[in-house]
Amino acid sequence: MSFSIVGKDSQTQARAGVLKTAHGEVETPVFMPVATQASVKALSQEDLESLGTQAILSNSYHLYLRPGTSIIKEAGGLHRFMDYHGMILTDSGGFQVFSQSDLRTIDEHGVSFKSHIDGSSHRLTPEKVIEIQSELGSDCWTALDECAPYPSDEAATRKALLRTMHWLDLSAKAFLKKRDEGSLALFFPILQGGFFPELRLRAAEHMSQIPADGISLGGFSVGEPKDLTWEILGKTVEALPASKPRYLMGVGTPEDLWNAVALGVDMMDCVWPTRVARNGQVMIRAGRYNIGTSVCRRDFEPLEPSCSCFVCKRYSKAYISHLHRSRELLAHRLISYHNIHLMFTLAREIRQSVIQGDFSQKRRAFFDGLKKTPQLA
Amino acid sequence: MSFSIVGKDSQTQARAGVLKTAHGEVETPVFMPVATQASVKALSQEDLESLGTQAILSNSYHLYLRPGTSIIKEAGGLHRFMDYHGMILTDSGGFQVFSQSDLRTIDEHGVSFKSHIDGSSHRLTPEKVIEIQSELGSDCWTALDECAPYPSDEAATRKALLRTMHWLDLSAKAFLKKRDEGSLALFFPILQGGFFPELRLRAAEHMSQIPADGISLGGFSVGEPKDLTWEILGKTVEALPASKPRYLMGVGTPEDLWNAVALGVDMMDCVWPTRVARNGQVMIRAGRYNIGTSVCRRDFEPLEPSCSCFVCKRYSKAYISHLHRSRELLAHRLISYHNIHLMFTLAREIRQSVIQGDFSQKRRAFFDGLKKTPQLA
Repeated sequence: MSFSIVGKDSQTQARAGVLKTAHGEVETPVFMPVATQASVKALSQEDLESLGTQAILSNSYHLYLRPGTSIIKEAGGLHRFMDYHGMILTDSGGFQVFSQSDLRTIDEHGVSFKSHIDGSSHRLTPEKVIEIQSELGSDCWTALDECAPYPSDEAATRKALLRTMHWLDLSAKAFLKKRDEGSLALFFPILQGGFFPELRLRAAEHMSQIPADGISLGGFSVGEPKDLTWEILGKTVEALPASKPRYLMGVGTPEDLWNAVALGVDMMDCVWPTRVARNGQVMIRAGRYNIGTSVCRRDFEPLEPSCSCFVCKRYSKAYISHLHRSRELLAHRLISYHNIHLMFTLAREIRQSVIQGDFSQKRRAFFDGLKKTPQLA
Repeated sequence: MSFSIVGKDSQTQARAGVLKTAHGEVETPVFMPVATQASVKALSQEDLESLGTQAILSNSYHLYLRPGTSIIKEAGGLHRFMDYHGMILTDSGGFQVFSQSDLRTIDEHGVSFKSHIDGSSHRLTPEKVIEIQSELGSDCWTALDECAPYPSDEAATRKALLRTMHWLDLSAKAFLKKRDEGSLALFFPILQGGFFPELRLRAAEHMSQIPADGISLGGFSVGEPKDLTWEILGKTVEALPASKPRYLMGVGTPEDLWNAVALGVDMMDCVWPTRVARNGQVMIRAGRYNIGTSVCRRDFEPLEPSCSCFVCKRYSKAYISHLHRSRELLAHRLISYHNIHLMFTLAREIRQSVIQGDFSQKRRAFFDGLKKTPQLA
């Protein structure tokens, strides 16, 4: 087995584990920064290394369209193309086909669409998506899925789920063929079912017949209220085998990290920490603030005085505030680095608390810390 | 004396020297990257350090308007505000007042204008510009000047020069007062005179009565043909004392570097290498090319195979081309770093060749190298 559990919380579903991949071991719970287009926005691979990045997410759909899979294959795979040597998980692109492309037509065998970049025509099938990921050489592969938009009624969600399950059968077959041919990649197919517990359970039941190394939980954080996220996520995770890692797709504020881990999630990714950084949002333990607020202009303290990242060791709020107001690119890099550093610090603390047995206490302390500074929320 | 000459070329006016400043010794000829708003665009101070940056240029006018001089003074000066510890030369802002601000009115005592940022009203005088630079704590100060636009007739250029010389007398007085009060800054007043040799000589004559530590050569690279630049620059430099460093403002392609040094220039700055980088222009010894050209898409070699910068050691043209096409911010940083690295490498080679006595030979070899690859020009 590629995944081993090294600690379990007694009061919640939280666990700590180790995932073995072709590019190193990943200690879970883990937060994965997003390199949609083979770059974590505003950061370099040197930055990822000094941050201690264990794993990143990239996107098959985006890389297939640009630069094109053949170029990355020719480079020797995505790791060599980027020169990033940690674990890479690739999203299937199903979500992007349905949310970003024009004129898509979907049928039993796959989806045809026009590129959001240049309008060129393309077709993705379950087998093609496995092939793309094989050519990219990523470490964890997902499978083509249909993510129902929010809100969708039960009939529409069921229809999308049935198609996703059918495609998953085809994807699994294609994946096993690659494994037989020597691929070391792990299979992390995507579980859908929207916000209908019965459909999620049906998806989990189907997933149990699939040779999955881990389970990607898709269709969350698509516009639904947070209470609904946690309710449906909790019920879904309960129906999954304890032995396999659970990857919650596209969810990732600090609060989400604590809450999702409490429900049994092991891996998460989100563009949020780097996206808000580019708007000047600085993440701190107590919440977040915008570096553009006027109080930062004369504040010569670091972004967060207790933080040990290179940004906080060297630069002041006043300087970064000036960079932000002056639209200097360096502002994006410094705040993105700091925000990812906080996500990694929290993920490590969460893991440590699960192992030490005080996860619930630490989680409470984290949320109490938030409440004390409502002006930052 | 703060400047000592350690080598002279026998065939041209090229010299090699050392400028002692309050923030270290600067080996000349030197190329200074531009940090207009207290940031060399797309680079961090860690980047400047690993590049071996000896000196940068910043801009009094920009920093006075944003973040405001008082904030930088409160931070402990510009070096501490940025956390950059090499030499900083500050431009007076005269050029910017005349080129960027709205509704300026000029009189004998100074210039009133509205900010290009928020339309607020301001007034700069020769004394005020010295005071701003004193509060910034930069190492080399310029003086408020009036740069005649190109083209200007002789009467208009003379009028601007007379005003500049009058202001220079006032600036020198204010500078000496600061020196008496303990300032360690060096004075690099700006010599104007447009493209009229007689006016340039008159300005040089006037400059000889000013307690200048170095001479800033302003009013070049304002739209004139290159032949005219070199003709007037050569005649101007001839009229200057050999003992003082000459700083050619705002000029700085690799070709310019070789040509200006041949005429006796010691210091140069230019936004060019970082500005073109953000448009995808990669500087190499043989000229330059755009990373966006389709031939780069499948080129897995470094930006320049013989280059020793971290970008060339690690990333391929194909990857950087992809970043550029995908509008990823990392492209700006990588190309800017590489371009500045080439400028520094050339400046060091130029200095070495002056000391070794083969400057003209090396200069010829450089230009011959350009000619061999016309497709890159």
